[in-house]
Amino acid sequence: MPIKVNGARLWENLMQMAKIGGTAKEGCNRQALTDLDIKGRALFSDWCRKIGLQIQYDAVGNMFARLDGRDNHLNPLVIGSHLDTQPTGGKYDGVLGVLAGLEVMTRIVEEKIIPERPIEIACWMNEEGARFAPAMMGSGVWAGMLDLGEVRASIDLEGISVGIELDRHGYSSHPDPQDKDIAAYLELHIEQGPVLEAEGKDVGVVTGAQGIRWYDVVLTGQETHAGPSPMAMRHDPMRLVPALVQGILEIGTRDEAARATIGQVHTAPFSRNVVPGKVVVSVDLRHPNEQVLQSMHDDLATLVSELTGEDRKLTSILEEIWHSPVVAFDAGLVTSIRRGAKELGYSYCDIVSGAGHDSLMVARKVPTAMIFTPCRDGISHNESEHIEPHQAEAGANVLLAAVLDYLGS
Amino acid sequence: MPIKVNGARLWENLMQMAKIGGTAKEGCNRQALTDLDIKGRALFSDWCRKIGLQIQYDAVGNMFARLDGRDNHLNPLVIGSHLDTQPTGGKYDGVLGVLAGLEVMTRIVEEKIIPERPIEIACWMNEEGARFAPAMMGSGVWAGMLDLGEVRASIDLEGISVGIELDRHGYSSHPDPQDKDIAAYLELHIEQGPVLEAEGKDVGVVTGAQGIRWYDVVLTGQETHAGPSPMAMRHDPMRLVPALVQGILEIGTRDEAARATIGQVHTAPFSRNVVPGKVVVSVDLRHPNEQVLQSMHDDLATLVSELTGEDRKLTSILEEIWHSPVVAFDAGLVTSIRRGAKELGYSYCDIVSGAGHDSLMVARKVPTAMIFTPCRDGISHNESEHIEPHQAEAGANVLLAAVLDYLGS
Repeated sequence: MPIKVNGARLWENLMQMAKIGGTAKEGCNRQALTDLDIKGRALFSDWCRKIGLQIQYDAVGNMFARLDGRDNHLNPLVIGSHLDTQPTGGKYDGVLGVLAGLEVMTRIVEEKIIPERPIEIACWMNEEGARFAPAMMGSGVWAGMLDLGEVRASIDLEGISVGIELDRHGYSSHPDPQDKDIAAYLELHIEQGPVLEAEGKDVGVVTGAQGIRWYDVVLTGQETHAGPSPMAMRHDPMRLVPALVQGILEIGTRDEAARATIGQVHTAPFSRNVVPGKVVVSVDLRHPNEQVLQSMHDDLATLVSELTGEDRKLTSILEEIWHSPVVAFDAGLVTSIRRGAKELGYSYCDIVSGAGHDSLMVARKVPTAMIFTPCRDGISHNESEHIEPHQAEAGANVLLAAVLDYLGS
Repeated sequence: MPIKVNGARLWENLMQMAKIGGTAKEGCNRQALTDLDIKGRALFSDWCRKIGLQIQYDAVGNMFARLDGRDNHLNPLVIGSHLDTQPTGGKYDGVLGVLAGLEVMTRIVEEKIIPERPIEIACWMNEEGARFAPAMMGSGVWAGMLDLGEVRASIDLEGISVGIELDRHGYSSHPDPQDKDIAAYLELHIEQGPVLEAEGKDVGVVTGAQGIRWYDVVLTGQETHAGPSPMAMRHDPMRLVPALVQGILEIGTRDEAARATIGQVHTAPFSRNVVPGKVVVSVDLRHPNEQVLQSMHDDLATLVSELTGEDRKLTSILEEIWHSPVVAFDAGLVTSIRRGAKELGYSYCDIVSGAGHDSLMVARKVPTAMIFTPCRDGISHNESEHIEPHQAEAGANVLLAAVLDYLGS
């Protein structure tokens, strides 16, 4: 009979944490490095200390709650996620991973298991990127993907920098994030998509993350007054929009794993009685296979280069903004999660992460894997984000099984 | 041999006036009711007084420079335009009409012509609508199309109201704008479009103004994260954009006089990694024939209603925002302008105004007509707005001819 988590306690903790920054619409606003974020971390620290964990920080505000093992010279197994939320976020995004980590740790303590190596719960700083860009800030600095100095200079809408906030909360005096060694990392998170719910699965075994490429397509023509200029004398970049939008969305239908999204369209000048001189269309392409993603990129480049046709006063340019390569999680950890789900009797399927997570950063340095729980209608980054208690419990049980499997207990 | 204007003097006055609010890029920033606008009006008043004209105001800040006639109980013939500019405007938009009015009046005085009725140069308040919305404010109040009280409440970006500025400049104590009677109105203006230049004409005989209808097409679907949601499970309103944009632009190709413009496209939330829940597309339809404009409207309504097809989670709604009906100028005045251009040996053609002008307001009450001069590349509302001295002179000569024709001199 495998050890299981206390689902009721996990749920109670989720509800308690949600009160800090709780919104009228039952969501949560606990943005990174705000006083509310610190208050949430203090509550979490209290819970951790009660079961004997030691709290440690690093200079970018990542927080680790540690349980010593038999050999404390070994690098720790780390489990966790983040406690910061979007401004109109939900109660589960990130928080589930941290509090499930606490629940797993609590059960290990209750069962008087002394693991071979230390275990730690990570609470990464500013995963959301809502108050300070970019996202996955704390894990990104730890992984060496972001520079601490640059990150400290990032400012919020009021001009307050990450550095000022790290100083104010006393984090800056802690060790350099990159000094910390980790053996492996496991993260439970809500899916933030509709697949598990649609497939009726209890748990998702996350095999990796989509590669992501971001672009702006910049269409230019000649700005002119909407009244006097005959249609035939216009050089209206809007004429290119139908073929462009249709072509981009088609690139997303190459296979079931492909995604193409146009989140932003902007006209300049933004005036209803002026033919725009410029139209900018954002493109977000994703695929779990880097080669396929590259061929989607090639299709986009061809589409954009052939767009203007014969009107030489129209131009279309493809500007690549960001490329996050495909991430493949550690095969051993993925297998361990799959086996855990099976042995616990949960329905499960493999899934690829479409959203960004701290795991994507951590995976650049150490063996990493993730577990997903379904969320209602796939809705996240929204106050109406919702999961059921039994779903949180299932995810935490699989996390516990994977932890014990890794520790060889 | 017809009397002609002094083109060099007209040009010199244009250059002098352009210094007030002149910008580094050779444009003009002399927005309505600013100190610079008042300074420009003072210079104009000085010029008017030097040739014996009397200056009058009304309570909305319209200004009239009057030359008495033989019978001063007759309503005046009014010629003019506006002296206010866009924030990055040019030297000719509006100003040409006012200063050509001054030149016409100067020639009448110099020739010692005593007209049968008074003539006045109008300088309408806030034609541009740049600092205070709406545009054509002074002429709109005079014509009874706008309410003086509502107009006084209009505020600029700094929260200063039209009323405060009218009080500050001493205009408010003057008579109610609607008390003033006018016999007929003539306005010279730059075309603000490319037609006359492309056709190689010296002068445009403006027969009326396009009707304008403004809309927002609101497309809604379901907002979702760009990564996790499979394309087939999305309800992405962007899918409707190609057919919508193409359909709207096609409506503008019904005949040569039709115009269809999409000046604004906006997605909500405006985030590059979120499938938008809403896309709003602005539509500006124009035609000089009201019946044709109505059938363009009908086509747009059909296009929008048939857009969503089978996806019941997508909606498309057409919201009409504004309807400015077709304006037909006075047949007698239009004929008089055409005859004047012909007798002076200028090349000319009929043209329909695509932009808004004070004449469109004035025409609702009294016989009105306009003369256009070409402007380089059709560019206006821009510091690079440009006309040639001989073009200004040609327009002013035709205006003088039409004035003398009207007065029977």
